[in-house]
Amino acid sequence: MNSHQAVIVDQETAQGRFVFVCEHASNVFPEAWGDLGLGADQRQAHIAWDPGALGLAWNLAKALDAPLVHAPWSRLIYDLNRPPQSSGAMAERSETHEISGNKNLSAAQRLARTKALYLPFHDRLRGVIALRLALGLQPILVTVHSFTPIYHGQKRAMEFGVIHDQDPRLAQALLARAKDHLGLITKLNEPYSATDEVTHTLALQATPYAIANVMLEVRNDLIATKAQQADLSARLAPILQDAVYDLTPSQGSH
Amino acid sequence: MNSHQAVIVDQETAQGRFVFVCEHASNVFPEAWGDLGLGADQRQAHIAWDPGALGLAWNLAKALDAPLVHAPWSRLIYDLNRPPQSSGAMAERSETHEISGNKNLSAAQRLARTKALYLPFHDRLRGVIALRLALGLQPILVTVHSFTPIYHGQKRAMEFGVIHDQDPRLAQALLARAKDHLGLITKLNEPYSATDEVTHTLALQATPYAIANVMLEVRNDLIATKAQQADLSARLAPILQDAVYDLTPSQGSH
Repeated sequence: MNSHQAVIVDQETAQGRFVFVCEHASNVFPEAWGDLGLGADQRQAHIAWDPGALGLAWNLAKALDAPLVHAPWSRLIYDLNRPPQSSGAMAERSETHEISGNKNLSAAQRLARTKALYLPFHDRLRGVIALRLALGLQPILVTVHSFTPIYHGQKRAMEFGVIHDQDPRLAQALLARAKDHLGLITKLNEPYSATDEVTHTLALQATPYAIANVMLEVRNDLIATKAQQADLSARLAPILQDAVYDLTPSQGSH
Repeated sequence: MNSHQAVIVDQETAQGRFVFVCEHASNVFPEAWGDLGLGADQRQAHIAWDPGALGLAWNLAKALDAPLVHAPWSRLIYDLNRPPQSSGAMAERSETHEISGNKNLSAAQRLARTKALYLPFHDRLRGVIALRLALGLQPILVTVHSFTPIYHGQKRAMEFGVIHDQDPRLAQALLARAKDHLGLITKLNEPYSATDEVTHTLALQATPYAIANVMLEVRNDLIATKAQQADLSARLAPILQDAVYDLTPSQGSH
């Protein structure tokens, strides 16, 4: 697997400020890594990817004239939203599922996945961001995720999560507007927050450049079909665009 | 200029915890970028590089069995310790010197330097760090700089600066030991600090991984010769090694 297959970038030359990222876009298990001992049902389940997230992100990128950076293989091989030393990077267990192909990985195996998947993905994403910084486009980073309606047997009532890392400004601006206008049960830093390690991409790619950033989490039954993805994007895109007005001019330009 | 010429890594497979970085190691002006309109004296001066820093860093890397990542070309072409949107990345002025070759750069020119120099350097450095994280080596990042004894006509009495970004732990551990044992006039966050934008490499490469990190600044007349560089390294290396004992086990391993 070479670096061309480790990451896909759509609309790289788009001129809007947003940059969308979908680390968990795919449930493909390339031959090089095998199926990790998972059955077909498990490879379809939310443990392998974030169903619907890529379709939503693609619609948002179209609506907001933005690049979209996404992974073409399952998060279970390497979770791009985790650093290499994290136990969650190549998880031995996800929710109620054992991932046998991730058990007792050697240092050499962890290293091989880090080199083949984590580094090229994040190098490429940094390239997209850095080039937009050099051009004065004042990028804003948005990661798009989905969560399962039932987790460890519990039904989740919430529908839309807005999650921040160190810089809460865009999350707060978006939260207020989403609560008023999106028509979804919206929460801040739920169902996950930075303390669950879910903001690695934001910390790695946005914080060092002081650019505005936020992570979105949508309950996956709300974006299961292409029509749902397009519909939610049509409602969410103007809210995202509007939230930018709350950012001070210094964000992304200093 | 390809990416092989944009960065040099020595001792990549060393087994110690430290990773040394020297962003301003060289005063070479490769043909591709020209001399930026500078005379020979200016290309030798501290505005073009950090004299002595590479020699000191090389001795420290040898003493502490560490990789050393350094740039083979002048900071005036691109200052690797600045993000692409910073006016300091391709400075139009440095101390009292006008850099005519950096005046009125077009977006395309800024982009070309960012792609050719900034991205490959920091991709390579991240690779060095991430691979050590994957192997469980608990890396610690140290950037090595030098400062001029006379700045804007003022003589600087201080000799050794210990500078931190967001995580002050290693800086504080080192400062206490340096004041007691190094025999140099030692200051915290002088002659520069994070507010001067000098901790970009730390923020970009260490903070997202929660690994311990510090920036060192040595007055360049103290490391002008190979003998001085070796002598200071011999005094500083054990102090650096000892400072690690103050770090909690979680640093670099979580």
